Amino acid sequence: MKIVILRNNLKNALDAVSHTLGDASNLPILKNILIKAVGGKIQICSTDLETAVVRGVAGKIIDEGSVTVPFSVFNSVIGNIQNERIDLDSKKMGVLIKTDNYEAVIQGMNPEDFPIIPKVDKKDEFFEINGEILRESLNQVVGAAQISELRPEISGILFDVEPGMIKFAATDSFRLAEKTVYETEFKNNFERGMKFIVPLKPIQEFLRIMDGKTPVRIYAVNGQLMIENGDLELISRLIEGQFPDYNPIIPKNLTTEISLDKNELIGALKLASAFTSKNNEVRLKITKDSKVVEVYSSDSLLGENKYLIPAKISGEPVEVVFNWRFLLDGLRNLESDSANIGLQGDIRPSVIKTTADASFFYIIMPIKS
Amino acid sequence: MKIVILRNNLKNALDAVSHTLGDASNLPILKNILIKAVGGKIQICSTDLETAVVRGVAGKIIDEGSVTVPFSVFNSVIGNIQNERIDLDSKKMGVLIKTDNYEAVIQGMNPEDFPIIPKVDKKDEFFEINGEILRESLNQVVGAAQISELRPEISGILFDVEPGMIKFAATDSFRLAEKTVYETEFKNNFERGMKFIVPLKPIQEFLRIMDGKTPVRIYAVNGQLMIENGDLELISRLIEGQFPDYNPIIPKNLTTEISLDKNELIGALKLASAFTSKNNEVRLKITKDSKVVEVYSSDSLLGENKYLIPAKISGEPVEVVFNWRFLLDGLRNLESDSANIGLQGDIRPSVIKTTADASFFYIIMPIKS
Repeated sequence: MKIVILRNNLKNALDAVSHTLGDASNLPILKNILIKAVGGKIQICSTDLETAVVRGVAGKIIDEGSVTVPFSVFNSVIGNIQNERIDLDSKKMGVLIKTDNYEAVIQGMNPEDFPIIPKVDKKDEFFEINGEILRESLNQVVGAAQISELRPEISGILFDVEPGMIKFAATDSFRLAEKTVYETEFKNNFERGMKFIVPLKPIQEFLRIMDGKTPVRIYAVNGQLMIENGDLELISRLIEGQFPDYNPIIPKNLTTEISLDKNELIGALKLASAFTSKNNEVRLKITKDSKVVEVYSSDSLLGENKYLIPAKISGEPVEVVFNWRFLLDGLRNLESDSANIGLQGDIRPSVIKTTADASFFYIIMPIKS
Repeated sequence: MKIVILRNNLKNALDAVSHTLGDASNLPILKNILIKAVGGKIQICSTDLETAVVRGVAGKIIDEGSVTVPFSVFNSVIGNIQNERIDLDSKKMGVLIKTDNYEAVIQGMNPEDFPIIPKVDKKDEFFEINGEILRESLNQVVGAAQISELRPEISGILFDVEPGMIKFAATDSFRLAEKTVYETEFKNNFERGMKFIVPLKPIQEFLRIMDGKTPVRIYAVNGQLMIENGDLELISRLIEGQFPDYNPIIPKNLTTEISLDKNELIGALKLASAFTSKNNEVRLKITKDSKVVEVYSSDSLLGENKYLIPAKISGEPVEVVFNWRFLLDGLRNLESDSANIGLQGDIRPSVIKTTADASFFYIIMPIKS
C-alpha cells in the first residue's frame, strides 16, 4: 500500500474511529485500526467486535493494499504532524509515515488478522432520513436509556418504523421518552412496519461522529444494523427481544395540569439539588387555587430550601416527589421555553410535554414518599 | 450577621477560596468557609491549616457578625441563583439565603470554632511588585518544582531578594529554572537581602486567583508568608531549610551551541513522544559540520522516528539524550520564538535560554544512555 493523504482529512477519519477500539486483553489487534486502499477507495476501520466504524478518506492511491497499526501511536504521530501532505507506505507488517523533514516507522500486525467487519447484504430494506432531524430526534430520547444487564431489551433505543411515521423511544423503567418523526421528513423503503432496538453505545457513537448535513440511510437485516452517512458506515448488532409495550402507562386521565416556564423550573431544580445529596428527591407542591408551584427539598444535615414559580394550574391540589435528575432530563429535551406537566396524583405516572411540539413526550414515575 | 451582596461578587469570592478547603476527616469545619462582616468589611475565608485565603467582597452590612457553612452546598446554591441581589442572614448556627422568590437555610457550625488565620505582624518588611510581572515570573519557574517528601527544601519556589534584584528559582533535581526581576520592576522594603522558600501549593493557588492588574505585596516574617493583592490575602507557612546552591551546576564551558526555532523543536518532541512510552528518552544528534539537529526516538515494540530541524550549530558533534517532558517544559518557558541550547557533552548539565531575554535560564540534566 502506498497513499498520499492530507493531514486534516486523516485526522477527521481517525477521530471517527477512535471510540470503537476493542479491549486488547481479549485480542490485541482490536487496539489497531485497519487502513485499506482497495478498489480505488481509502478507508479507515475500527471495531470492538460489537460496533464497527468504517470511514472513507479522500487521498491519492499509488499502490493498493492495507495495513493495520496501533491506533494510539498512529494517532499521536498524525496529530502532531504540522505538514499538510502525508505519505503512508506499507513496510513489512507496519507503516512508514513521511513528510518533508520527518519520518516514522510504526510497527503493525498482519492486516489479514483484522476482524472481518460484517456486511449488511439486503440493501433494498432501509429508510432514509435527514441527518439533522435524526440527530435531534435521537438526542431527545437517548438520555432516558440505560444499559441494564438484567433487561437488555431496554438497553437501547427502539426504532418503530410504521407506514407514515417512525417512533424513537427509550426507557430505564423510571422514565420514558418518545419522539415521532412523520413521513414528510423521511423516505421508507420497508414494505411493512418494522421494529428494532439499537444498543445505546453505537447510537451515542453515531451522534458523536455523524454529519448532520448529509442524509442517513439505516438498514436493519438479520439482527444487524448498518448506518450510512456520507463517508461513514457504522455497523452494529441489534438487541434481541421485545421492547416493553408502554402504551398502558401513557397518562390519560390527568388530575392536575401545570404550565410554566421551563428554564425557571430547571433553575429551581438545580438549586434544590444542593439539598438532596442522598436520594435526589424534590417535592413539587400545589395548593388549592394557587398560582405558584413550590419546589422544595431538604436534608437533615445540610438544610432546606424552597423556590416559588409562577404557573397556570388547573385541577386538584397535590404534593408529588420526583428524582430531580429525571425531571431535569425531561425538561431539557423539550424544544420550547414553556413546559406542560400533567399529573395523576402522587403515585401514578406523570407526563412532560409542550403544546408547541406534539411529537415528543416524556413520562416520569413519581417517588413514593 | 445580616448582609446584602451581589451574586457575581459573591461567586468570585467563592471561587477564590474554593481550593484551600481542608480535609474533613481531620476536622469537619475545614470543609466550611467563614463569612465575616466585621469592622465594616465583608470577607470570605477558607483554610487547609497550611494555606489560608481571605477574600474581601463588596456588599452592604446591615448587622455585623459571622457565620461558617459548608462550602459545597453554599457554593452550589449561590452558583445556581439567577437573581442579582442576595440577602444573607445568620440563623442559629447557619445562614438564611434569600432572593425574591427563593429561600434556603444552610446548617453551619459555630464560627468561633473556625481555625484562627495567622496574622503576619511586622508590616514594615515587604517587597511590592507589579502583578503581571510576578505572574509571568512565577509561571516561568513553577513547573520545575515538585513536591518531595525526602527533600522538602526543593518542594517550593525560592524567593531570593537581594539589593537591586529578586531571583525566583525552582528545581526537582533533574532540571532547574531561574528568573531574575530587576529593581525597576519592584519596590524593596527589606533593609538587607532575604531568602525564603514558598511551598508549591500556595504559589499555584495564588497564580490561579491573583489579579494581575493590582500590585502585590509580599511579607515573609517568622516562617510565615502573607501575600496581599487588592481584595485578596493569602497566608501560608514558609518551607524551612536551605535551598540548594545551584551556582556550581550552571554550565560555564559549553562545547556545543545550538540556535533553532523553539516551536519546531517543540513539535519534534511531541512527535518523538509517541515512541517513548517507557522512559521519555529522546536523542538529539549533531554530526560534524551539520546544519540540522536530528531528533530521534524509538521503542522496540512501537517503532521509531526522526525529525530534522534546521539550526545554527557551533562546536563539537554530540549525541545527547533528554527526558522530552523536561526539555519541553524548558522551551515553553522561553519568552521568544528562538531557543539557544548549550551543551557540555552528553553527561554534564545543559542550558536552555534565549538571546532575546537574559533574565531567564533553564538547566537540564542529560540522561546517561
